[in-house]
Amino acid sequence: MTDFEMLDGAIRRVHDFPKPGILFYDITSLFVKPEAFKYVIDRMVEIYKDSGIDAIAGVDSRGFLFAAPLAEKLGLPLVLIRKKGKLPGDTYSCKYALEYGMAEVEVHKSDIEKGKNYLVVDDLIATGGTLVAARNLIEQGGAKVTDFFGVIGLPELQYEKVLASSKITTLINYQGK
Amino acid sequence: MTDFEMLDGAIRRVHDFPKPGILFYDITSLFVKPEAFKYVIDRMVEIYKDSGIDAIAGVDSRGFLFAAPLAEKLGLPLVLIRKKGKLPGDTYSCKYALEYGMAEVEVHKSDIEKGKNYLVVDDLIATGGTLVAARNLIEQGGAKVTDFFGVIGLPELQYEKVLASSKITTLINYQGK
Repeated sequence: MTDFEMLDGAIRRVHDFPKPGILFYDITSLFVKPEAFKYVIDRMVEIYKDSGIDAIAGVDSRGFLFAAPLAEKLGLPLVLIRKKGKLPGDTYSCKYALEYGMAEVEVHKSDIEKGKNYLVVDDLIATGGTLVAARNLIEQGGAKVTDFFGVIGLPELQYEKVLASSKITTLINYQGK
Repeated sequence: MTDFEMLDGAIRRVHDFPKPGILFYDITSLFVKPEAFKYVIDRMVEIYKDSGIDAIAGVDSRGFLFAAPLAEKLGLPLVLIRKKGKLPGDTYSCKYALEYGMAEVEVHKSDIEKGKNYLVVDDLIATGGTLVAARNLIEQGGAKVTDFFGVIGLPELQYEKVLASSKITTLINYQGK
């Protein structure tokens, strides 16, 4: 079976969320299907176990759900990319445009290891705005983002243009928005 | 080594966050130490593998980081307890008082399986307010919370009083706030 065949049935579509005109691919329906969730984590382990990454960054908060099991299985450090105001220590910060609105993300300065190669994990890649900001944070710490991972990709939103200098992997792509 | 000896060095203290007078136990420092993170997940697997739980609920968003690896390893459904406005489908909702402020949490109605036994996972248990609200959501769906888990417990804040009808497990307890 392909990734698409394994995962498509586990992803729910919600129209007009969070705003009218947006078709939201709801990945929360995947977590109540243990075989689908396990499939995703197994695929991530297979893809990244010998890829040369030194650490994993998970994007607040659905990215945490895939980044945490992967980091635990690979025995790699896990760094949290969080929305502004959530992290208590000294942070690097980056503002960016979302598909619908503006946002700002932060990372603990002490969590980024200079010179290391990072994989950034999120649930879904749309415009790539959040991931560009995540990469900026990691670069502020003197490290490099070699890889991006999203379970779902929406390539029509052209994330490949802005993320292209790193390797991008998605398991299931959808057209349109 | 005890849980305390294994974990105490991985948890950072931050004074006056998010408000003056609060001592914040920052668990994000644990995730960049793979051996400490693995230790927590292994302990959770050991505690819950034969405990009779049918599903796991993770509390937005640091609870996700422990609930997701556990759910994947035990092969159990994972339900997300999220802050208001994050879930696109039909939800149960519950308002509650935080240690500092008010909040509201939601869960997808379709994710709760009637009659099943749930474990609710968070990073830290303080007053227990968030966990009482999480239990309320799960009970609205006709299911039961048999267990609560937090990596860190602050027993002086008396969470045992409000959570007592379910079993409470923490790995490391701190005094005061």
